[in-house]
Amino acid sequence: MQIINENTSHGGRQLVITHDSETCNCEMKFSVFLPPQAKAKPCPVLYYLSGLTCSHANVTEKGEFRAAAAEHGIIIVCPDTSPRGDNVADEDVYFFGLGAGFYVDASEAPFSEHYNMYSYVTKELPKLIAEEFNADMSCQSITGHSMGGHGAMICALKNPDTYTSVSAFAPICAPSQAEWGQNAFSKYLGSDKSSWRAFDTVALIEDGNKVPEILVDQGTADEFLETGIRVPLLEKACSENGVDLTLRMHDGYDHSYYFISSFMADHIAWHAKRLG
Amino acid sequence: MQIINENTSHGGRQLVITHDSETCNCEMKFSVFLPPQAKAKPCPVLYYLSGLTCSHANVTEKGEFRAAAAEHGIIIVCPDTSPRGDNVADEDVYFFGLGAGFYVDASEAPFSEHYNMYSYVTKELPKLIAEEFNADMSCQSITGHSMGGHGAMICALKNPDTYTSVSAFAPICAPSQAEWGQNAFSKYLGSDKSSWRAFDTVALIEDGNKVPEILVDQGTADEFLETGIRVPLLEKACSENGVDLTLRMHDGYDHSYYFISSFMADHIAWHAKRLG
Repeated sequence: MQIINENTSHGGRQLVITHDSETCNCEMKFSVFLPPQAKAKPCPVLYYLSGLTCSHANVTEKGEFRAAAAEHGIIIVCPDTSPRGDNVADEDVYFFGLGAGFYVDASEAPFSEHYNMYSYVTKELPKLIAEEFNADMSCQSITGHSMGGHGAMICALKNPDTYTSVSAFAPICAPSQAEWGQNAFSKYLGSDKSSWRAFDTVALIEDGNKVPEILVDQGTADEFLETGIRVPLLEKACSENGVDLTLRMHDGYDHSYYFISSFMADHIAWHAKRLG
Repeated sequence: MQIINENTSHGGRQLVITHDSETCNCEMKFSVFLPPQAKAKPCPVLYYLSGLTCSHANVTEKGEFRAAAAEHGIIIVCPDTSPRGDNVADEDVYFFGLGAGFYVDASEAPFSEHYNMYSYVTKELPKLIAEEFNADMSCQSITGHSMGGHGAMICALKNPDTYTSVSAFAPICAPSQAEWGQNAFSKYLGSDKSSWRAFDTVALIEDGNKVPEILVDQGTADEFLETGIRVPLLEKACSENGVDLTLRMHDGYDHSYYFISSFMADHIAWHAKRLG
């Protein structure tokens, strides 16, 4: 593990880190914010998973999470959205390949060699955080935006004992049924759509996976609401399967970081309450 | 005036605007955040002047000012740092020319044709804000970072009746005596150093220009503290000339937006108190 950037901010330390990932079989980069409280005691961890085309950097610069993280004493971990490097298979589109790992473990060649973001986020990255930082690993929560909202929800639904709470900003709710997801899932997971269900929030809930509650914020002016995000499918699945969904629709907000940053402090406070 | 970007954020509207500037003789771009209160009543205005290499965009994305601006009901206006365009004279260095207008009115050819950022910021831009937005122009304050901190202080010192209050983040305090400033001032203002004093904070204070108080935040790990910023010169000038300087040194903070964003809410609250 190597710290490649360090800035004091909001009383804590904002780091950018590279490390050799066994899971993704390449060098991976992530950011971590250590609140001032982490100097004195182990702190809870909140993972933020980013959306299509992003790296760790977008939310680290534009997410406005540090003031609230410092207030509540929460470590914020922001991984990349895919493996990276010259040897990593890619296609020249924004919604697949580099910057678009969809938080799955790919089963199909050539993608299976590197695209294992699900195991990276749920296993390798937490192990590294536990080893290197003053983190209370019994208190982990997860959130994300768009493709990262999808990622956060599947990680929590598949590991309800690992994550204390889960929230999302404008999440892709049912990638198997969304423009963005179908292309990616067919290439990462193959043509047998039954294998897609293990990485699809709505399908996971339909298949009996459970978390007690999910907080979702969504802008009404989001240009991807109908085709990529599809919150009504999430509402239906949650309502039919006993998952308490708090869906807050926000008038005039779009899909950008101007939206995310507006509600980031709310999400951190919401997780903080549950992380104790 | 043309709105080229608009995002709902923190209950308000974040706009990016272009207009033909008479003062700079080119198209100029700036951002303006209208807090939710501006829908109902005229709001005070806080100008934020950016530092070397920046445009309006850096602080608009990374400054973390919207939450506090929405809380206090203040319009935030962020101009560019220089004229722009293919016809604008430039040199291929980061500390002069494009992105480095130093908030002076240049007297020397070829720069005098476009580099009139002082008049742009103090006259043309406020006139446009007054015409186009629900702004209370009797309540204007100004702040800035680095070269923009220099800009904020000279604008306030030269127009003490226009600006209710002035603050700065890691400001260039005495450009006439600093690496960054000497090159720029000699080219914009000519070799006669007496003309530099009209655009130099320390010299303006020495020459009897006054504001009641200045708030300055400064990181101790700022790599430009000794050569570019030189706060001791500001401390001395203020102390000898009856300007109440609140200088807050912050352990471990550098010159980046991670520093600025950490104290942005403080500055907005400080101005809000004075703007009433």
